Order: sequence, then C-alpha cells, then structure tokens
Amino acid sequence: MEKINLEKKLGLFKETWTPKIISEINGQHVKLAKLHGEFVWHNHAAEDELFYIIQGTLIIEFRDKVVELNAGEMIVVPAGVDHKPIAHEEVHVMLIEPAAIKHTGDVQHELTKEKLEWI
Amino acid sequence: MEKINLEKKLGLFKETWTPKIISEINGQHVKLAKLHGEFVWHNHAAEDELFYIIQGTLIIEFRDKVVELNAGEMIVVPAGVDHKPIAHEEVHVMLIEPAAIKHTGDVQHELTKEKLEWI
Repeated sequence: MEKINLEKKLGLFKETWTPKIISEINGQHVKLAKLHGEFVWHNHAAEDELFYIIQGTLIIEFRDKVVELNAGEMIVVPAGVDHKPIAHEEVHVMLIEPAAIKHTGDVQHELTKEKLEWI
Repeated sequence: MEKINLEKKLGLFKETWTPKIISEINGQHVKLAKLHGEFVWHNHAAEDELFYIIQGTLIIEFRDKVVELNAGEMIVVPAGVDHKPIAHEEVHVMLIEPAAIKHTGDVQHELTKEKLEWI
C-alpha cells in the first residue's frame, strides 16, 4: 500500500493509446494513458468507464453530441454507449474501469491492446 | 451523461468531513470532500477506498506507518485496513468507493454521516 504520484507514473512511458495500470480498487483498474490523435468508435457492453483529464483537452464524440473535457474535468461513459475519443494535442488521462474490460470493446482494430502493463 | 468540473463542484459546499456524491461508476460512487482536522480511526471491512488529492496535503495514519499525500497523488486503502485521515490545513479530495460503503465503517462517531448528498 504505497502512494502513487500521477506525474511520476506518467514519466515512465511515452506510447499513446496504451493505458498502463497503476492501481486496483474493488475489481476495477485505475489506469493512466496518453492520447494523441483519433481513437476508434467503440463501446463497452457491460462496463462504465471514467475519464479524468490530467493535462490537455480531450474531445469525446458520442452518437448524439460532442463533449470537450479539460484538465480537472471528468466524465463517466455508461456501459453500452458508443464513444470516440479525440486528442488534437497530447492528453494525459486517468481511467477507471473494471479489470475485465476490453480496450476497444468488441471492435478489433490496429489500436487494440490485448494485455495492459502495470507500471 | 455530462462532464463534471471538480473545481465547480467543490465550490458548491463548505462543510468538512461530509463527502458529496458527484458520479457513479459500476456500483461505486465518485465523491468530493473537504477535510480539515483529524478524522476518526476506522476501516471498511469489505470495501477498498481510493483517495486522490486535488488540493492540500493529507496525512493518513495507518497502524504501522504514516503516508503524506500531496496534490496529484493518490492511494488505495484496501478493505479492512485501519486508517485515520488528518488534514492540518483544508484538503480537497476525490474519493471512489462502493455505493454501499459506510462513512466511518462500523465506528459510530459524531463525524459519522448516515446519508450522503448528490451535488
């Protein structure tokens, strides 16, 4: 049981769209990710997903609206809701989602990561 | 499904040791709290609890060590682990824990809040 400094953890990797697991809470993983560019449309059939913005501006497109999130802002994307994250410049986010979640839902894409790393 | 700005939400209340619920994810609540002074020793028998520091310095005493958390740092207190939060100056935190959790575990104390408010 150690404290976790988000900035220090973010300094340990550079890859984008590759969430790293930093902690676990009640069967859910806490992750950090660097995002840059456009991700793929997907949803997670059974899992809500929390995005908390540490740095930058993240756009999330939904089928019926677009949300712009800045540092210090968060959103929970409910299970089953299609979403497409877009980062015009590099964005650093904390994600919280069940440990069993699949990266791009049931969509298979070149960005899909099958196994995430703990840092 | 709206974005949540943590600073704006923190501006909606002043009470300390009274977590406010701001969101829900997979049966867990995301909460904001203002802490000042010493809380009571307690644990949550079945629930892990995440503390993320937004502002200030939070000390958490455990039975065998003391951890100091500053803004941008977090810790997960595992289920069953005794802890006592202390804030020498006002601290703003985000908490994530199961919706069913009791504020001071099985300890009844004047600081215990039975029902938390959504903001």
